[in-house]
Amino acid sequence: MIGRVVFTGSELRSIGLTVVAVAAAAATYYANVGGSVAPFVISGVALALLASLVGRSVEALGGRLGAGATGVVQSALGNLPELFVVLFALKAKLYEVATATIVGSILANVLLVLGLAFVVGGAKNGRQFFDQTSARRVSLMLLLSVAALVIPALTALLHTPAAGHERALSVAVSILLLILFAASLPASVQKTQAEGAGEGAGEGAGHGAGPGWPLWLALTMLTAASVAAAFVSDWFVAGLTPAIDALHISPAFAGLVIVAIAGNAVENVVGLQLAYRNQPDHALQVIMQSPVQIAMMVAPALVLLSPVVGASFTLVLPPLLLAALLVAVVVAVVVVFDGDSNWLEGATMITLYGIVATAFWWG
Amino acid sequence: MIGRVVFTGSELRSIGLTVVAVAAAAATYYANVGGSVAPFVISGVALALLASLVGRSVEALGGRLGAGATGVVQSALGNLPELFVVLFALKAKLYEVATATIVGSILANVLLVLGLAFVVGGAKNGRQFFDQTSARRVSLMLLLSVAALVIPALTALLHTPAAGHERALSVAVSILLLILFAASLPASVQKTQAEGAGEGAGEGAGHGAGPGWPLWLALTMLTAASVAAAFVSDWFVAGLTPAIDALHISPAFAGLVIVAIAGNAVENVVGLQLAYRNQPDHALQVIMQSPVQIAMMVAPALVLLSPVVGASFTLVLPPLLLAALLVAVVVAVVVVFDGDSNWLEGATMITLYGIVATAFWWG
Amino acid sequence: MIGRVVFTGSELRSIGLTVVAVAAAAATYYANVGGSVAPFVISGVALALLASLVGRSVEALGGRLGAGATGVVQSALGNLPELFVVLFALKAKLYEVATATIVGSILANVLLVLGLAFVVGGAKNGRQFFDQTSARRVSLMLLLSVAALVIPALTALLHTPAAGHERALSVAVSILLLILFAASLPASVQKTQAEGAGEGAGEGAGHGAGPGWPLWLALTMLTAASVAAAFVSDWFVAGLTPAIDALHISPAFAGLVIVAIAGNAVENVVGLQLAYRNQPDHALQVIMQSPVQIAMMVAPALVLLSPVVGASFTLVLPPLLLAALLVAVVVAVVVVFDGDSNWLEGATMITLYGIVATAFWWG
Repeated sequence: MIGRVVFTGSELRSIGLTVVAVAAAAATYYANVGGSVAPFVISGVALALLASLVGRSVEALGGRLGAGATGVVQSALGNLPELFVVLFALKAKLYEVATATIVGSILANVLLVLGLAFVVGGAKNGRQFFDQTSARRVSLMLLLSVAALVIPALTALLHTPAAGHERALSVAVSILLLILFAASLPASVQKTQAEGAGEGAGEGAGHGAGPGWPLWLALTMLTAASVAAAFVSDWFVAGLTPAIDALHISPAFAGLVIVAIAGNAVENVVGLQLAYRNQPDHALQVIMQSPVQIAMMVAPALVLLSPVVGASFTLVLPPLLLAALLVAVVVAVVVVFDGDSNWLEGATMITLYGIVATAFWWG
Repeated sequence: MIGRVVFTGSELRSIGLTVVAVAAAAATYYANVGGSVAPFVISGVALALLASLVGRSVEALGGRLGAGATGVVQSALGNLPELFVVLFALKAKLYEVATATIVGSILANVLLVLGLAFVVGGAKNGRQFFDQTSARRVSLMLLLSVAALVIPALTALLHTPAAGHERALSVAVSILLLILFAASLPASVQKTQAEGAGEGAGEGAGHGAGPGWPLWLALTMLTAASVAAAFVSDWFVAGLTPAIDALHISPAFAGLVIVAIAGNAVENVVGLQLAYRNQPDHALQVIMQSPVQIAMMVAPALVLLSPVVGASFTLVLPPLLLAALLVAVVVAVVVVFDGDSNWLEGATMITLYGIVATAFWWG
Repeated sequence: MIGRVVFTGSELRSIGLTVVAVAAAAATYYANVGGSVAPFVISGVALALLASLVGRSVEALGGRLGAGATGVVQSALGNLPELFVVLFALKAKLYEVATATIVGSILANVLLVLGLAFVVGGAKNGRQFFDQTSARRVSLMLLLSVAALVIPALTALLHTPAAGHERALSVAVSILLLILFAASLPASVQKTQAEGAGEGAGEGAGHGAGPGWPLWLALTMLTAASVAAAFVSDWFVAGLTPAIDALHISPAFAGLVIVAIAGNAVENVVGLQLAYRNQPDHALQVIMQSPVQIAMMVAPALVLLSPVVGASFTLVLPPLLLAALLVAVVVAVVVVFDGDSNWLEGATMITLYGIVATAFWWG
């Protein structure tokens, strides 16, 4: 083992690229150069690469800790970059960006990435069928968790007597969702093991394809990437306001599209690759797990953690974000229950995503 | 037959308990003792026990009248206790409680009881699968009838020119739903017979497990229990206002949660027992039939009967009740179309119910 | 071929009837006789007959041009009568009628005609099962296209910052939907061929049952019927305002129910006949294709063509029309995913349609 080359060539290249991007982001931030847009773009790229590195470190760690711990570690740490960005946005009082980022992360996966997977998979492999049982289970959990998540927003919009209690209701919903999420981890771990042996399509995100790093290396990489992600998130958020001013982007559009995609971009490439390789079940699991985790874990955690950065975050969404979220989740459920996919369905989902994004252009 | 013991031991115990509860409720009501909360609680318990007794009397009657008449009798009389409570609430001009009770009865079955059945069944038997054909049929009827039921509320909220016509539209919808319901009875009776012979899972609620009472006894019990239910409903509603004042409960919460559960509690224990005994199909039918009957029969009947008690009831729901009802029905349809259940889905549904109830806490 | 009788007896009768109706409509229009209602009714009947004739000419043309061109021709020309009516309504600045007609065409097919097909098919053949794969595909495309179509309306209702950009967003959505529709045509053509050979249930509307007219005749009939449809649409719209004034109908009700049904009536008889002959798959395709084409092609084309008639049409729907459209599409998806049908489901869908129509009576 000692004589083993620690990193493969492709790993070295992607780590090197990440280091360069982080260094460039640091340079533009501390030297205050690059105008109003370049620092934002560079830190966005660095953030996307770090999110990918955190993901791979967690997988490697999971490979060493056994399947049991993987799910827990992954859920707890795999969404760290996204958490950091929204926390820094909240610290900067960019509530509109923060809210839009959460909804945008769900929308991007459920409409854009799933649509792209259908187009890529359909163009390469024709009509694709997926195992309805596991796909339905994930989409049902998405519906249930989003239904719980939107009750505070519906209440704020539609129920005058509850005015003034938005934060209390959001905290209650968040605690309940986090308890459910914690309770679901052991089952999802067992399922991962069972299905890993059986169907070969794990339900957790630890699909066994992580790098074969030793434990110390996985831990070091995870720590380094997470710390770097925290810094880069700060720079990214700092660059956000000048950039959206310079580019005349609305805060809602910035959160919904740009920040949301920067936080999920590289991970989702995996989903597209699986669709291309005609593994639609696996692709669907990878793409749909993330929005479920955002609804059950990231959004609730942000509500509870927001006082730490001096903000008071609630689950009260602006009405159009709420409507877009509900439409997207209903579409996702029907698409999954449909049981097969083709490029036209995918293209229509991408179009729907584009239309929703356009609606927020005037923010 | 003459020498036969009329009641079994367990029947005797539950009838005795009911008589005691009704007597206690009468005592607190007429003697005006027990403060502001105890009369309400005692009459609530008495009402739940009477609802159960009405249910069993109807089943016994059905066993004597043949399957053909059972469905008709059951639909007409099985929901009597719920009808009485809401009618007395309307008589007392507690419109908010009445509306919330109807929505709450649907929500409680579709989210809380179904969720409990999934948890109980899943904890005991692991993942449970149900026959999709019959389950889908019931959930589709729930969707269709609720879709019709909410048009007056949507119209009142969204369509200014129809202002002033709420009652007319509600009456029209109610008459159409009652005609459909009446027209569906013969078919549901035939299906009950056919499936009773075949699959063993009847679609009506007359699952053949009623007590073996002779006709005169079934009729006597039904009459006695119904008359008692009418009285106890009156006492229950009379105790409602002092109780919600004393406990600082909002009228919407009282109707949505407390009154709704009191009217359905004991019946639903049957659904949970079936899930525990790994009869998920049967459990699903029992639990889902009741909300369909509320939407197609109880709510329309209340609209038409309300003038009898001097009230003018419409199907115009407050916006958050409307939104909660639509979310719950969509969730119920997807849960049923999913075709299987596990404890996590059940726990999430219970959580969703709890969150909706919390939203109405500030009423 | 030369000695062949060009028209069959039943074709001659229906063409004769159409000519008589068109002539009568022309007479009442130009002679300005018949009071305020008769010209409207007569031109409505003429329009329905012309719509049917355009449909049959397109099918005949398709039979001569080969399956490849049929889908394209059919989609481009088969909806011409509906397009003409709404264009003339826009020219007359009857925006409320125009919007309601588009929504009404979708609602009528998805609730009324599908419900009638279930009742007719169920009464004749008992429970009917349909091939879930192709039915689900069409209903998913309906959901996706309607989801895209309603984003401008949701944005106008819920997102204040986008005020003033309704037309821009509607144009963007329309262009995207038309591109998707054009891109879907080759695939739908191939599917029609493949399925025509295999399952015998084509997905396009060109089900090979068109009249065996030679090319010159098909072209002549199509041109004549289309030109006549343009004229009759003009007369129909001219008669609309006096008629709704005389009959005290609201413009929304007139568009939603009367104009929408006049534009689709005869075509839909085919769907009902197929259900009666126990071909539920074929019936479902015929009935569900039309609303998909309205959402993906007719509505977008009207947005882009409206400046030609001096109008500025957008996809911004009044809120109750929007709600009714969403409820109807969700119902349609669940009904199709259910996989079977019976008369009670059909009767409830018809009732739901009637209730929605009643809500717009006060308009």
